[in-house]
Amino acid sequence: MATPSFSNNKNYFVSLEEALKLSKTIKIPTFEEKLPIENTLHRVLINDIYSKINDPPFNNSSMDGYAVIYSDTITATENEPIELEIIGTLPAGETPNEKLTSGFAIKIMTGAPIPDGADSIIMVEKTKKTNNKVLLYSPSFPNYIRIKGENLSKNELIFKKGTYLTPREIGLLATMGFSEVSVIKQLKISIISTGDELIAPGKELLPGQIYESNSYVLEGLIKEMGHIPIRHNSVSDTIDDLREELDKASNISDLIITSGGVSMGDFDLVRKIMEEEGNILFWRIKIKPGSPPLFGKWNNTPIFGLPGNPVSSHVVFQILINPWLKFITNANGPTPKIVKAKLLENINLKKEYINFSRVIVENTGTEMIAYTTTHQGSGNLHSLTTSNALTILPYNEKGTKDQIIDVLLL
Amino acid sequence: MATPSFSNNKNYFVSLEEALKLSKTIKIPTFEEKLPIENTLHRVLINDIYSKINDPPFNNSSMDGYAVIYSDTITATENEPIELEIIGTLPAGETPNEKLTSGFAIKIMTGAPIPDGADSIIMVEKTKKTNNKVLLYSPSFPNYIRIKGENLSKNELIFKKGTYLTPREIGLLATMGFSEVSVIKQLKISIISTGDELIAPGKELLPGQIYESNSYVLEGLIKEMGHIPIRHNSVSDTIDDLREELDKASNISDLIITSGGVSMGDFDLVRKIMEEEGNILFWRIKIKPGSPPLFGKWNNTPIFGLPGNPVSSHVVFQILINPWLKFITNANGPTPKIVKAKLLENINLKKEYINFSRVIVENTGTEMIAYTTTHQGSGNLHSLTTSNALTILPYNEKGTKDQIIDVLLL
Repeated sequence: MATPSFSNNKNYFVSLEEALKLSKTIKIPTFEEKLPIENTLHRVLINDIYSKINDPPFNNSSMDGYAVIYSDTITATENEPIELEIIGTLPAGETPNEKLTSGFAIKIMTGAPIPDGADSIIMVEKTKKTNNKVLLYSPSFPNYIRIKGENLSKNELIFKKGTYLTPREIGLLATMGFSEVSVIKQLKISIISTGDELIAPGKELLPGQIYESNSYVLEGLIKEMGHIPIRHNSVSDTIDDLREELDKASNISDLIITSGGVSMGDFDLVRKIMEEEGNILFWRIKIKPGSPPLFGKWNNTPIFGLPGNPVSSHVVFQILINPWLKFITNANGPTPKIVKAKLLENINLKKEYINFSRVIVENTGTEMIAYTTTHQGSGNLHSLTTSNALTILPYNEKGTKDQIIDVLLL
Repeated sequence: MATPSFSNNKNYFVSLEEALKLSKTIKIPTFEEKLPIENTLHRVLINDIYSKINDPPFNNSSMDGYAVIYSDTITATENEPIELEIIGTLPAGETPNEKLTSGFAIKIMTGAPIPDGADSIIMVEKTKKTNNKVLLYSPSFPNYIRIKGENLSKNELIFKKGTYLTPREIGLLATMGFSEVSVIKQLKISIISTGDELIAPGKELLPGQIYESNSYVLEGLIKEMGHIPIRHNSVSDTIDDLREELDKASNISDLIITSGGVSMGDFDLVRKIMEEEGNILFWRIKIKPGSPPLFGKWNNTPIFGLPGNPVSSHVVFQILINPWLKFITNANGPTPKIVKAKLLENINLKKEYINFSRVIVENTGTEMIAYTTTHQGSGNLHSLTTSNALTILPYNEKGTKDQIIDVLLL
């Protein structure tokens, strides 16, 4: 068997750091799209955002109660309340038209503007109203006034471009007065599974066949990052079929992801066609599982060739494609949740590889623990559904019982 | 001012545990929907799922190499290789039609079925092929055979009803042969913001007004849970307008969420109308921020009345509505990510309340730390966008520097 020629290249069997660095040398253009803010969930801001307003826009009350002058109330106690005359009521949304002077109070609702002259609020629970008088049983509080601009100042830089929009960022866009905003247009990402043994779920399984599943996993992962997956039918192991599908994909998408066919074997056609007709930037990475991926270009479209094993394909998406997509879109999210946990068992490590074992991470109440469940074969997608995290055990590190390690929550 | 009558009720100002328990006494029916698996991301299985197949469906090779008989290869070394005659090639997807006997080898690709007679695999890297002979430089490995059913057995219970579908569960559905699956129909959830001071973002801000933002946050949180938000226009502070909008909402949705108007004040109309015309199950919870929420029914439709402060409204959704929605749909996800972190500062706690302060949680490399950023006013949505977690500091616990606490990752 002929050894694949790329294996003599310096970018063969690289570290994860090198792979990430190399992948960032291939870029694609991104485009702008203006959307109503309610349609921007999990999208990425293309511009810096400066607040259109002060938040709050005016001094207002954080309590239901009375706007008063602090010096009037300072001696008030349970036994010796102070009496003030009520000269008006301010619901939220109205503007004050009277100036408050000593000896008077204005009834005020949460969110209503502070009338001129008032410098503090007494909450309604500390008062008693009779006709147009109110008794105060404690001094008033200046702290119950929310000061204009205390949260946001007008023209302040609030979100840098690249901000990933979760519900709370979208809420703050609304607070700042934006009804629509420019985000990065979603990338179209083709997914092509390869292998003669693959058939679509729902069909009858013949001897030697398995159901194709990787394209469904990748489709979901792409959606979760806010982009548009284009799932192709799986391609059988002939160079002509593969070429045709890659050409089709490169015409309709910004990125191609293949699964399967990237190992050493004669039938590893993705690797083979990329060597002979495409452009490979790197091949194989020192990670376990998932060492065979390649990255390069087909007809000027970037292409990640993922291994066919379902666990490997999922892991490589998370640690290689996810960061690349965020780099391309300049996005600061979704943020990987990497936390510390105590390993409850020894994990067999392959030296010189970063080890991503599937584990269950639990908060016991007193500490965070991590342990494995089923066997760790990379063909075992079940092991991934019964786990909620991946270990991140670096090169040459041991995975020993009671060690505190980093885990990536899934 | 008249004290609201519900405040004499035993379900007034309850603990979070009581609130969660009480909320689960109001149920709504759920319905089934059959969908192609590619459309089930973040949906919930309505039935138990049993595998349609063994995974793998047949013994197969996990390596590119040669299927051989172990006893033939046991003495093979770098210096004294064993020679076997190649009698065929098995790509993935094909079925073996020859039985292997001693002295022979069958070339085999990853995923191809193991031919009868073979009991082990030697990887291609440890061999050298010349014409129809292969030299083996090491013994073969039985472990390179993936055994039929080692991941999943046919008819095995794989997913319990209520399983929340992420990309990896959808992949496993495909592996098991399901092209479509029954999930729980999405709930329609009306969102109604109340307050005379609210105007929609995009309009000009007049004195005394603020932009309405809570409905956008709630809309995003509902979408993230896989349900359908129906955002109503905000309602001004009149009982008639509110009644009309609640009636409309109860006709078109499974659940109503309001924001604002649930405190003690005269203008807190959601609380008022619910006391007079609705059905309140509980009101006020011992949490900070977010103590004023109410829960009950309007025209037989469950209704959560959230506080108008944007941070409170977000927090109460996460800790009260999220668990209720999962209870109603019997869903095991999305799973809250609660981890441990070391507090870098003292946090002022309100006694007898569970404290959900906004913090930044970081993995420093050696430990997980948590610290606050901006001021913690519950009107400050900005504080939530600059945080990535909430503290969970239980009743009467101190939040002291260097304490290891639970944090909910956002």
